[in-house]
Parts: sequence; C-alpha cells; structure tokens
Amino acid sequence: MKQRPNNVYLNSDHSAVMIIDQTQLPNREVILENKTPEEMFVAIKDLKVRGAPAIGIFAAFAIYVLAKNNCNQDSYQEFYEDFMRHKSYLDSSRPTAVNLSWALNRMEDVVLSNSSDSITNIIKALEVEAKEIQAEDIAMCKSISENGLLILKDKKNIITHCNAGPLATSLYGTALGPLILAKEKGMDLHVYVDETRPLLQGARLTTYELDKHGIDVTLICDNMAGMLMNQGKIDACFVGCDRVAANGDTANKIGTLSLAILANHYDIPFYVLGPSSTIDLETKTGDEIVIEERNSEEIRSKWYKEPMAPPVNAYNPAFDVTDHHLINGIITEKGICYSPYEESLSKIFDENDVD
Amino acid sequence: MKQRPNNVYLNSDHSAVMIIDQTQLPNREVILENKTPEEMFVAIKDLKVRGAPAIGIFAAFAIYVLAKNNCNQDSYQEFYEDFMRHKSYLDSSRPTAVNLSWALNRMEDVVLSNSSDSITNIIKALEVEAKEIQAEDIAMCKSISENGLLILKDKKNIITHCNAGPLATSLYGTALGPLILAKEKGMDLHVYVDETRPLLQGARLTTYELDKHGIDVTLICDNMAGMLMNQGKIDACFVGCDRVAANGDTANKIGTLSLAILANHYDIPFYVLGPSSTIDLETKTGDEIVIEERNSEEIRSKWYKEPMAPPVNAYNPAFDVTDHHLINGIITEKGICYSPYEESLSKIFDENDVD
Repeated sequence: MKQRPNNVYLNSDHSAVMIIDQTQLPNREVILENKTPEEMFVAIKDLKVRGAPAIGIFAAFAIYVLAKNNCNQDSYQEFYEDFMRHKSYLDSSRPTAVNLSWALNRMEDVVLSNSSDSITNIIKALEVEAKEIQAEDIAMCKSISENGLLILKDKKNIITHCNAGPLATSLYGTALGPLILAKEKGMDLHVYVDETRPLLQGARLTTYELDKHGIDVTLICDNMAGMLMNQGKIDACFVGCDRVAANGDTANKIGTLSLAILANHYDIPFYVLGPSSTIDLETKTGDEIVIEERNSEEIRSKWYKEPMAPPVNAYNPAFDVTDHHLINGIITEKGICYSPYEESLSKIFDENDVD
Repeated sequence: MKQRPNNVYLNSDHSAVMIIDQTQLPNREVILENKTPEEMFVAIKDLKVRGAPAIGIFAAFAIYVLAKNNCNQDSYQEFYEDFMRHKSYLDSSRPTAVNLSWALNRMEDVVLSNSSDSITNIIKALEVEAKEIQAEDIAMCKSISENGLLILKDKKNIITHCNAGPLATSLYGTALGPLILAKEKGMDLHVYVDETRPLLQGARLTTYELDKHGIDVTLICDNMAGMLMNQGKIDACFVGCDRVAANGDTANKIGTLSLAILANHYDIPFYVLGPSSTIDLETKTGDEIVIEERNSEEIRSKWYKEPMAPPVNAYNPAFDVTDHHLINGIITEKGICYSPYEESLSKIFDENDVD
C-alpha cells in the first residue's frame, strides 16, 4: 500500500480532518475522520497525530473546519467568539507543543486581519492559510532533504534513531527526508533503525515509513549499533533534533548521545537534521536544556503482557544532549552548518544560504 | 523475602531437586520440585534454570536423585545402564551448554571409579560429588567476588549489563558478586542496570537479584548509559563474559561493546568478571569467536501484547565482542589480569595467583 501524499488532509466537503492514527501503527492502518472539536482534541492529546510540525498542520486544518462548519456565520463578533472558543480548546490539548500554538495563532491572525471582509471570505482565507502552513512545511522538509542529499552522496548504509519522518511532519520528514528523496531518485540504500526504547518510535514508525517507501530496512535493538559499526556496516548516522543550542549541542531522543559517541569512536560521520526553528540561539549550551523525565512504567511495563521488572526505581529521561564535538554537521532547510557552530548557526538567521 | 542460600538444592528426603523458576521472574517466585527425568529435562530446556554454572549444578543433583530413586539397585550393571540412560536424556536437554555435559561426566566418573563398591556407597559418593560441584562453584564465585572487591574499593555507582548473578551460578555470581559481597560488608552502593534488550535479563533478573540483596538499584534502558556517564553518575562498569580470547577480547551479551566504548569515551573503568574456565587460549582474538544470531521475533514481538514493528528484517546477534583495549581488567577466581592480556591471561593457568 502506497502511503498517502500527506498524513494530514481534508475530506472532500471539508467537514473533517483526516489522519492516519499513529497509535495503531504498525499493526493497523486506521484513517481517522475528525469532525467535532472533541475528536480533534483527543487526536492531539492521545498522540494519534504526533510530531511538532504534523500537530501544527493538523490544528490549522482543524480550526478551519470548525470555523466553516461550527461557527456562527451571521455576525463577525459571534463568529470570532466561536473561533476563539475552539482555538483555546484545541490549544489546551497538548500545552507543551510549540507548533500547536504557533499554527493556531497564525490562523487567528487571518481572522483578525480580514475582520472587515465577509465571513465567507474569512473562511476562504483560513483554508488558504492552513494549506499554506502545510505547503511551507513540505517545502522546508524538501529543502532539508535536498541539503541532506548533498551529504548522503554515495553513502549506502545509514543508521537512524527514533522517528523524524513524514508522519511527524508533512512529507519527507527531517532525518528520514534525504533517505526518502534518495530512494525516489533511484539510489540504493540500506537503513538500520534503532528500535528506540522505551517508546519504540523506531520500531513502530520509522521501519513502517521507510518500508512504505520501498527502502531496505533492518531493525535493531539500541544496544546493537556499536557492533554494526565495528563490523563496518554503517557509513553515516542521520538523526533529528528537538532543540539545538547556540554552540551546536543538540537535544534529541534519549539514545542519540550514545549513538554519537559510538560513531565518533569508529570515525563514522554523525549528522543532525532539523528545521532552523529548532535552533535556539538564546540557549548558549546544552547544559541549559532542561530534560523531561517521564514515568518509569514506560520502561517497566508499557507494551508488555505483564511488568518485565520488579517495582524498583527506573530512570526515564525522554531526551539527551549530544555534545557539538560529536556532530559533523547540522542540516537545515537554509543550509548545512559546520563547526564552529556559534558562527555557522547564527549565520543562517542572517542569510538565505550558508553552504 | 530473603533469597535462599542456593538457587538449586535438594528437598529433605532427596527425592527432588528444587529450583526457583527463572521464567516466572520477576512476577512470581515459584519454587519448582523436579522429581521425574521429564521434569528435570524440561527445567533445563525451557530455561527454568539458566546460566551455565547453575545448569551444571542442577544436572549433578538431578542425576544423583534419579540414581537414588529411579535406578535398579540390585545389580551394578543394571544400575549403571539406568544411570547412563538418565545421563543421556538429561544431556540432550540443551546440547550447547558446556557445563551440562561437564557436570554429568564428572558424575559418571564417580560411578565408574566406585564400580567395585556397593551401590549404596556409589549413591553416597554421587551425593558428595554433586555437593562438591556446587561447593566448588560457590568458592569460585566467592573468589571472583573478593578479587572484584579489590577493584570496587570505594566506587559507589556501578553499571552492569545482562545477568551475571547468583541465579546464573550458585552464590554471589560473577559480575554481581563483588556488589553483593560489598553490601554484605555494609558498603553503600548504587547499581544502574541496563534492561538488556531483547531478552531483558537485566530488567527481569538482575534488578530482582540486587533488590533481594537490599542493594539500591536503578533500571535504565540500554540507550541511557551514555547520558548517565555524561552526568558523572557512573564510577565503574562490571560485566560478565561468555568467552575471553587469548588477547583479552571478550564475548558477552549484545550491548557490552557499546557500553565499553561509552565508558572509554568518559574515561570510566570497565571490568570483565568470570571464571578462568571462560578464558579460551586456543582462540587468539575476538575475530575468531562465532556470534550466535537469534530469531528476529525476539525483537519484533516477544513479551509484547502485539508485534511492535512491521515484518521487516531484524538483526539479532546474541553477543558482541569487546576489544581488549576497552577493558581495564579481567577479574577471575585466580586473580585480576591486566594488559598486556596475552601474558596475564596465560599466566593464570600456570600459577595460583597473578595479582
């Protein structure tokens, strides 16, 4: 089955936002129709749609559908009040997801800046804006992918960690983007995927996405990467990022640091891929990045038929910080940044292209 | 609940070998009574008793119980034939476990060398030999533990991988031995335990054993060790071994190599602990060690409510080989070996003590 061009899209009469339910993957490809505010809220809250860019796109389409179908369209004031009620409700579904508020604020700006126009036209403008948010993400992922392709060249065996693919974005994704683009161009690839304990995003989502795109995939446990590198089976590492500090230190899914140290030991290049919006020049070094610590039951019992450890302490940080010395390059939609990162990262906010 | 002094022992009238069923841990502490040859066979085959030394001890007690209760005791010839029938049957339960054949052969030697004595006395000699095999293992583990304690000194925070504890041996274990001994001596310790995917021996067995001994334990996913080391939370690594080559290269549970590279990166000492019987001077380097590759379903679906990855390829090596450059010392019952290992390892087969 070919994957849909977008993971988030409108149904034919624009009465619903359609998504693939990520909590059901890889066992069931369930397409969810989200019509009511409650369905939309739950879709975000329960991670049926996940990945910061994908959540932003979903929220933009959702608020458009609600404005079109569930807002009072007789008076601007009442329309705006209904719009804001829906906006607050959706915004509260996952308060820490920055893209969620960001997308909803962009949609509100459309309503405000078109307040003198007819409500029919405001709704049309909302549709245009939602599609624009998605189109921008597609273009950004495409640029990241093309820049990544410059690095990939003839490297054949890649390892990745967690999931930074189309499901988390619009098309292509970030870390997986160059791999998918390479495959589209007929290049031959083999991707090793860390299962990524404890939440198994690699096993559940990355293998699923790469397999859908016809890419040769091998799933491994996180503790096997060192052996593969020792055997000469890995040419490069491609990972995503959650936040990049001004000096290049990079927060990403737990296990990324270990992978980078292994790559460094075997002199295998290690690349971070992400939109420039994840670069936070206000954060000087990785030491300033606060790491979310999650429930220990994710390690002890989640997914299992019964708990697989006695009720001892478990430490469950969601992210780690990879020292910039371990990173060979940071690939963004605006170009590729190399060490010294203080210079190269700040430069991409001044210019269009640093490469 | 205090752990029993031995994990393998005889019931009061010597009609059964008692074990804790390791497949039920950590959720249920089930004591199994093994009376019939079939029960004994299944106990080994289904990993209810596991760990090479523990299997050897169990087999020795098992063949003694069968000789006592299920052998014809009227003629030596018939007694010996019954004994050999039971021996072959038990020996076929797990053909690759070296200690199984080794222990059964030692028991057969007792029968043969006492053939002119009464059957009552032969049976008494079998009891003595089985207890001797267990006593030797206890003494060996105790020596490994005492040698390990010389290394442990005032190191407080230890990380271990997989399970090399009492359950796999008799008492103390190998890698866990110094930790348990230290606790008995009133020392304060904190042990981080890699869950050890895919079979979760760390999560299921090591946390259980250390917790039983009152040691402060924190369970982590294998991919979190790098972050802990980066935070300065680890003082030393203690791991077991399956085979040590003449140059010190060490085969152990998959993930050991990655842990050793991480420790090396952060300049944290990394120690291998095991009986001298795992040192194989015939194997020159780790390159000669053949690594068992196991079923990919252990990664995709084992333990889970449903498969957690699509049916893509999965690579599942059971062991990896840690380069001797990454190992600070190899701790055996005969002493501690340091680099250059060619010298120090061969020396322990000549002398009683190399340290």
